[in-house]
Amino acid sequence: MVLLIHHPVSPYCRKIRIIMSEKKVLFGLKEETPWNLSSDVYKLNPAGELPIFINDGHIISGHYPICEYLEEMVNDNPLLPSAPKDRAEIRRLISWFDDKFYREVYKNIVTEKIYKRFSQGLAPDSRILKNGLNNLMFHLEYIDWLSEHRNYIGGTEFSLADIAAAAHLSIIDYLGDVPWESFKNAKIWYSKIKSRPSFKEILKDTIKGILPAKNYTNLDF
Amino acid sequence: MVLLIHHPVSPYCRKIRIIMSEKKVLFGLKEETPWNLSSDVYKLNPAGELPIFINDGHIISGHYPICEYLEEMVNDNPLLPSAPKDRAEIRRLISWFDDKFYREVYKNIVTEKIYKRFSQGLAPDSRILKNGLNNLMFHLEYIDWLSEHRNYIGGTEFSLADIAAAAHLSIIDYLGDVPWESFKNAKIWYSKIKSRPSFKEILKDTIKGILPAKNYTNLDF
Repeated sequence: MVLLIHHPVSPYCRKIRIIMSEKKVLFGLKEETPWNLSSDVYKLNPAGELPIFINDGHIISGHYPICEYLEEMVNDNPLLPSAPKDRAEIRRLISWFDDKFYREVYKNIVTEKIYKRFSQGLAPDSRILKNGLNNLMFHLEYIDWLSEHRNYIGGTEFSLADIAAAAHLSIIDYLGDVPWESFKNAKIWYSKIKSRPSFKEILKDTIKGILPAKNYTNLDF
Repeated sequence: MVLLIHHPVSPYCRKIRIIMSEKKVLFGLKEETPWNLSSDVYKLNPAGELPIFINDGHIISGHYPICEYLEEMVNDNPLLPSAPKDRAEIRRLISWFDDKFYREVYKNIVTEKIYKRFSQGLAPDSRILKNGLNNLMFHLEYIDWLSEHRNYIGGTEFSLADIAAAAHLSIIDYLGDVPWESFKNAKIWYSKIKSRPSFKEILKDTIKGILPAKNYTNLDF
């Protein structure tokens, strides 16, 4: 059985959990705190980053290699289309969320509201937070546009692009910062993703000391 | 023929140029300045980022999707091994350089020395620069260790991991900031990569107003 070393507020760890659940890979979880990693983490991954995937002594560190490995190894329920052009579009969107959304939204909102509080006992810097919330509007507009023009974020089928987008958004949504009412198409899309059985465990995550937003776990929000 | 929209100091663009050259893909280049992108770039890639790959009207934006696309489409000279476990190790190292090295070294050194100068006319912040140079030592130690224990960075064969590592390092090397003498194994490895025909064009790049370090283009440095 796979062991995933993870943390609930890491979008990268959420992504891998959803992928494994979609692909019916059995896995156990071990939690590590990103702002206070144990020395075990560094022994497994000299980069000192989560997630870490361990299967029968085989270790893979980092969401990108784990993600591609699972897609190569588990043929059931493919999460990438078969044509290279379509795969490129899905990967463009994965990178949109894992790099751009992370840098422009997550770093400004989640780092300020969660990491700073638990690692340093500090309140968020309101200027940085505002910046993150402004950037979020741009990203929601883009998700809204994609959802209006496509069945799923990356095309006609559910894919890794939906998983990456929803993994990132779900953490911002936990904090109650997503104004869904202004982005109807994005809301319909997210509700579709949220209803998948693979998302159920993610919605059960709680962050000690921070209650989830009112509609975080509601499928009809 | 492929057109790559690029900039010479972007490690991500260098990576794609080396890959195409290794795979004998014919391509032309169009330069865009990252700190002053034209509106054309945003029309092609709403993320406003380089590289952008255009082939007969088909556009792929971002180094990760372009890299995987080239590997899927061009079977000659594979740059990923065939076993999924080995591919995962190469991708772990790609991410090491594209994410960690970029964040800890490139952002502190190249952004300070080049971007800041040309976009704002400012001198580098010596504190940030020092931070980048300190981080570089840790990364060189790791490259040195990998080069001592493996034929190439990612294993027995030349791969995308070598390309990612060398693309990033080459820009720092242009600026004369790599103390090769203290990292003998890393030096031997880099000299091997630098000697490949695919690296030749990269070494011809010049940055207007900044001369390359003395040994930048020397294969025997």
